Amino acid sequence: MVPYVADLTLVELKKLENELLLRYEKMASSGIKLDMSRGKPAASQLDLSMGALAGISDCRTADGVDARNYGGLDGIIELRRLFADLLGLNADNITLGGNSSLNMMYDTIMRLYVFGTHGNTPWSKLPAVKFICPCPGYDRHFGICEELGIEMIPVPMLDNGPDMDEVERLAAADPLIKGIWCVPLYSNPQGICYSEQTVKRLAAMPAAAPDFRIFWDNAYGVHHLGATTPLANIFDACDAAGKPDRPFYFFSTSKITFPGAGVAMECSSADNMTELRSHLKVQTIGPDKLNQLRTLRFLKNADGVRAHMKKLAGELKPKFNIVLDYLDRELGGTGLASWTKPAGGYFVALDTLDGCAKATVKLAADAGLKMTGAGATFPYRRDSLDRNIRIAPTYPTCNELEQAMKLFCVCVALTGVRKLIADRSK
Amino acid sequence: MVPYVADLTLVELKKLENELLLRYEKMASSGIKLDMSRGKPAASQLDLSMGALAGISDCRTADGVDARNYGGLDGIIELRRLFADLLGLNADNITLGGNSSLNMMYDTIMRLYVFGTHGNTPWSKLPAVKFICPCPGYDRHFGICEELGIEMIPVPMLDNGPDMDEVERLAAADPLIKGIWCVPLYSNPQGICYSEQTVKRLAAMPAAAPDFRIFWDNAYGVHHLGATTPLANIFDACDAAGKPDRPFYFFSTSKITFPGAGVAMECSSADNMTELRSHLKVQTIGPDKLNQLRTLRFLKNADGVRAHMKKLAGELKPKFNIVLDYLDRELGGTGLASWTKPAGGYFVALDTLDGCAKATVKLAADAGLKMTGAGATFPYRRDSLDRNIRIAPTYPTCNELEQAMKLFCVCVALTGVRKLIADRSK
Repeated sequence: MVPYVADLTLVELKKLENELLLRYEKMASSGIKLDMSRGKPAASQLDLSMGALAGISDCRTADGVDARNYGGLDGIIELRRLFADLLGLNADNITLGGNSSLNMMYDTIMRLYVFGTHGNTPWSKLPAVKFICPCPGYDRHFGICEELGIEMIPVPMLDNGPDMDEVERLAAADPLIKGIWCVPLYSNPQGICYSEQTVKRLAAMPAAAPDFRIFWDNAYGVHHLGATTPLANIFDACDAAGKPDRPFYFFSTSKITFPGAGVAMECSSADNMTELRSHLKVQTIGPDKLNQLRTLRFLKNADGVRAHMKKLAGELKPKFNIVLDYLDRELGGTGLASWTKPAGGYFVALDTLDGCAKATVKLAADAGLKMTGAGATFPYRRDSLDRNIRIAPTYPTCNELEQAMKLFCVCVALTGVRKLIADRSK
Repeated sequence: MVPYVADLTLVELKKLENELLLRYEKMASSGIKLDMSRGKPAASQLDLSMGALAGISDCRTADGVDARNYGGLDGIIELRRLFADLLGLNADNITLGGNSSLNMMYDTIMRLYVFGTHGNTPWSKLPAVKFICPCPGYDRHFGICEELGIEMIPVPMLDNGPDMDEVERLAAADPLIKGIWCVPLYSNPQGICYSEQTVKRLAAMPAAAPDFRIFWDNAYGVHHLGATTPLANIFDACDAAGKPDRPFYFFSTSKITFPGAGVAMECSSADNMTELRSHLKVQTIGPDKLNQLRTLRFLKNADGVRAHMKKLAGELKPKFNIVLDYLDRELGGTGLASWTKPAGGYFVALDTLDGCAKATVKLAADAGLKMTGAGATFPYRRDSLDRNIRIAPTYPTCNELEQAMKLFCVCVALTGVRKLIADRSK
């Protein structure tokens, strides 16, 4: 238990440092080896979806198509209807992909980059392309921008989504700003949910670029830990604002059934989908319809998904509780860290004292605990305040997680106390 | 039965036209409805792979990875080893994809186009990019070039592969010529196999472009109808010629297990694969490893694939026989058509009299038989002689195929006779 550190004298801080160091060294020598770096489901979660791996004998889809053979660029209609029903989308505007929604995002940006959209200049032909990146955010979104040389403009996340004053100012001012990354429900890593007001402002705001696009990655759209957090419909909002082509909506069953073998989907306006299909049909003959059948037969319908997600929450909630309990107990009231308390999703985000994230993560790694790299949640891996750390509670067992959090809290405290000592000694 | 038409008088030709027209009209009125337009396996073939749809309970790979979860960018090692063993490749240089090798080809070209390779200028930044397209060839290869504005240069196919004199002349002369499409075994649509000499010349020929690439689509690499036709190893040949980075090799189980749910693979030099993976890891977290496990457990090993292909050949050989028997019986010795007699693959290619392919395909369509569009086997769908028609015998049942071939032969003959009449009447 660490006291409120700002009240401590330098001598008291040094005494505290020694205590923490002793605890750290004891744990470091105990041979911990844990990986909390990625938001992976645990085996116990995956076990709940084994029904989706049952053998298939009847390979016909609802409309009589033999799912084993070629064809069906959009995927099987009954699974498109399930997604439509679950998320409030139009099944006609959905295309199902393989196992990776990231792949669909990448390909969508690549098409905008190489071919352009609706007669606008392809982004590759412009002097520069820029994206608004609410952060902290998802490292793999930023990775796509970085690979294509798309300049990332960080915008802070507030309690109800990105700082919309700033987003609106940017989008209106610069025609080279072509898009924004959004994880609207239980954002990665903070678990922030976009309010109705945020959704409406994103939909309605003037953008200098006629081909400004919202990349709406609803990765955690049904991943509630307890009560359901509502999310306003981005298509309704964009339609109402007269900007139907603005959003590209992504979703997958990666964290419903299997991360390696789920089904991803993309949805956009009818016009956008017509254009998308004209490229997609050159790229592939169609997705794996048998896996779509498997996924469909296991989940059955939207209610089936919701019931399944309740079971998964039963696995996840105790893990989030462990994380939050440890943080509260070990760091609460110390002034050394603040953190989010998400109602869903896969992560807890913690802010250390400024300038302490990298050192904290290194300290943990040296003792055998691998966390997501400090800075990973920011464009170019640059957390200018060096304070954000993503905690991914899902993969370890509860026992491992307790061990990990005990160590992690000591690392946060030790690094913070050392920084205070250094500051005071200046 | 049609006589050798060149010997007939105009009156005899007109009589023959009437006879053929009567036969055509009788068939047309019988309500035929058949689709022979794509190279799709028949349901009876797919039934032989139902073992690959068995349920999975053990999801561990050979190296202990849980195939249900994220990760494993290259796919599972044991299936990479199977492909390596089957095709004489290096498993370390193989990456497994989803269900579509076409998708891997598209993405590979897209990377060369957007990012370039090994420091060469990205193709998108050049004033033009050109590809050598042996033809007739595979329409979807040409579709990728067309989508990216890559200029296609047709080169004729000879008995042992593309006209290598012409290929060598083109590749040496123009640095904007960046690649060549090859289906080296049982080419689509002619079923031509590249000789060892052809493979060696492709590997060794000087190319003005340092980033000249061979797209080696070995789609029918194990798809023998009878005896095995050998194919020289393109990597050995390129290594020997000091051009290890030249080939990108593609293969899939689309026509081994399921077209919609097979496993695709790509193989190239170690340097090319290092570069490829650096992009791939931005695009996706990894392929569907569970489907790879399913495919592996069904096929077991290279011998298992070969045994399975023998069973499939048992389904296909009678269909190829029907096609060739009808062509022989109805068109043999008439001078109205010539055709290939493939020892494997999925197609028979037929040449009508010059200027007759489009009209023949239309005649067939009007009577209810859909063939691959005339011209589809050429870049820009332009068969300058308007004579090539792709016959895809695999999808219909034997009974349907007999019906279809009877009608098709009449369409070829009727169109040819009409052309001769028109020529003589000039």
